[in-house]
Amino acid sequence: MRVRLKDIAEITNLSVAAVSIILNNPESSRFNVKTRDRVLKVAKELNYIPNTAARALVKNESKLVGLIIPDLENPFFSSLAKFIELNLRNKGFTTLMVNSNESYENDINLIKFLIGRNADGLLIALSANSYGNEEPIGQLLSNIGTPYVLMDRVLDNYQCNHVIFNNKEGQYMATNHIIEMGHKKIGYISVKEGSLSGYYRYLGFKKSLREKGIEMDPKLVKSGSFNYITGYNNAEDLIKEGVTAIVCANDLIAFGVMKRAKELGIKIPGELSLIGYDNLIFNDMLDIGLSSIEQNTETLAKSSINLLLKHINDKSTLENIVLETSLIKRNSVEKL
Amino acid sequence: MRVRLKDIAEITNLSVAAVSIILNNPESSRFNVKTRDRVLKVAKELNYIPNTAARALVKNESKLVGLIIPDLENPFFSSLAKFIELNLRNKGFTTLMVNSNESYENDINLIKFLIGRNADGLLIALSANSYGNEEPIGQLLSNIGTPYVLMDRVLDNYQCNHVIFNNKEGQYMATNHIIEMGHKKIGYISVKEGSLSGYYRYLGFKKSLREKGIEMDPKLVKSGSFNYITGYNNAEDLIKEGVTAIVCANDLIAFGVMKRAKELGIKIPGELSLIGYDNLIFNDMLDIGLSSIEQNTETLAKSSINLLLKHINDKSTLENIVLETSLIKRNSVEKL
Repeated sequence: MRVRLKDIAEITNLSVAAVSIILNNPESSRFNVKTRDRVLKVAKELNYIPNTAARALVKNESKLVGLIIPDLENPFFSSLAKFIELNLRNKGFTTLMVNSNESYENDINLIKFLIGRNADGLLIALSANSYGNEEPIGQLLSNIGTPYVLMDRVLDNYQCNHVIFNNKEGQYMATNHIIEMGHKKIGYISVKEGSLSGYYRYLGFKKSLREKGIEMDPKLVKSGSFNYITGYNNAEDLIKEGVTAIVCANDLIAFGVMKRAKELGIKIPGELSLIGYDNLIFNDMLDIGLSSIEQNTETLAKSSINLLLKHINDKSTLENIVLETSLIKRNSVEKL
Repeated sequence: MRVRLKDIAEITNLSVAAVSIILNNPESSRFNVKTRDRVLKVAKELNYIPNTAARALVKNESKLVGLIIPDLENPFFSSLAKFIELNLRNKGFTTLMVNSNESYENDINLIKFLIGRNADGLLIALSANSYGNEEPIGQLLSNIGTPYVLMDRVLDNYQCNHVIFNNKEGQYMATNHIIEMGHKKIGYISVKEGSLSGYYRYLGFKKSLREKGIEMDPKLVKSGSFNYITGYNNAEDLIKEGVTAIVCANDLIAFGVMKRAKELGIKIPGELSLIGYDNLIFNDMLDIGLSSIEQNTETLAKSSINLLLKHINDKSTLENIVLETSLIKRNSVEKL
């Protein structure tokens, strides 16, 4: 059984209140040194662990931050989660981490859950399909009272503290790079309709084509989810349409294209150029040579934490931070 | 500000106790339907969220399971974490997930933290370096009173509920496969000293060599951590020793060997055979052709949860579950 204050009080022949005062503040002068040392010794021997939940309830602060991640198996998010947990721990906070599995219904339940757990604040990367379901989420968020910061994925037309990457600029850079290498017939696989990040990346893609005088062919634009299978399932169609390059809205999609292209005997590079987005750690580890757009998860973690702590201390905080991305050139993009 | 029972009581002109009874049990016949509906309507309009932390404290059950993961960026563990969170949520539990970053000091602090948060139970995958530091962890665990299950990584000579994979058998299978393909000069990169999983894998490697009549050459056995850099840093030495195959204690180590071998112009397969362990999802996704040992994270998640719930319901539960692994042959292992 877990050791409680009552057990220590019984052994030391003191009241529960006295034991509580001594354990909460061993420097207190209300008890003599002998009594104090006896209590501390018994507490240590019994492996007494203070009930943080009870203390938080009394003090109305929990030193707890709720973290909602849409897909822990996506290395971008597992890396982000790792940095958030480490950096919050260094600041004395604990992270209550949950996984929404890319469902906005889960987002709603998890936000309520984390508030019910008395989190001091929330860091939320929304599900991809929260875009298109902005009303129920926006309505909930505007009523919760608990400080929160939206990370990476935000709601359109909804004002709140958030930290995002410049998605439009990132995809614009990627597409510019492809066009500058001489490609004109370019496929695009993105998440056009179910995600605001996806939507802004799509705008960046379109902007690049427009500026370079290339007309967009709707047959060459495919849409799905930010996952491997979306790339795998759409690659063949684009290859059959005769594209010489494919721009992907994330690396997992690009990984799916690589797999399908290999099955079809299409060489990347050589017969097809390819660029991803996220610059996942496996690109370097496995030397797969995929050019990509770097979004630094450590920077996103730190900026989001700082903004949340600022918001916890000052309820009037309202900041929108946009982090820049960079183009990482490897060998998957070739001159046509 | 967050809406509290008091606010609803004021608006409805009822006592806090009455509001609490109605919200906790809307079917209660102690109030008339009109009163009940008024309270429910106001609660809904104000977006009232029950204080789960307070309720858990009163009922002494939190429906909360603490989960300690050693390295969220290792896809084996992020996949395990994802399955645990999903399966616990389906059973009405919330997962409080923390990352120890492979440090047993963090394990100790995090175990105390999770108990302080009134977790109903703990699922723990210990840090690799808990082996060799078994005393402080064992001492803490034997005193906590909260039900827990060790997953994947356990302590030697310490009896408790646990679910592990058969590490010795898995590494034995991998090594047998290499030897059956004609290799005799075999390198091994593992985590020999800082981890019990690593230790048992090492025993499996030795058992295979012994049974096949191959003498173990200590120069060919390297040790480090379960990460990419360990493989990267040890590959060159082994290649210079003239090994024709390398057995790795996990896939990340094998990924490091692949990278270094490529830099050195050594072809896998062709000039060097290689086998990993974990069968990470990226093996298939990226078609990197690494033979490996499959450890099913979904099975580990489900077995661990079932055992923990059994233990929560029956304190006398003491079970050690060993899950089997399987050999996945791809093209990184070639006949010599």
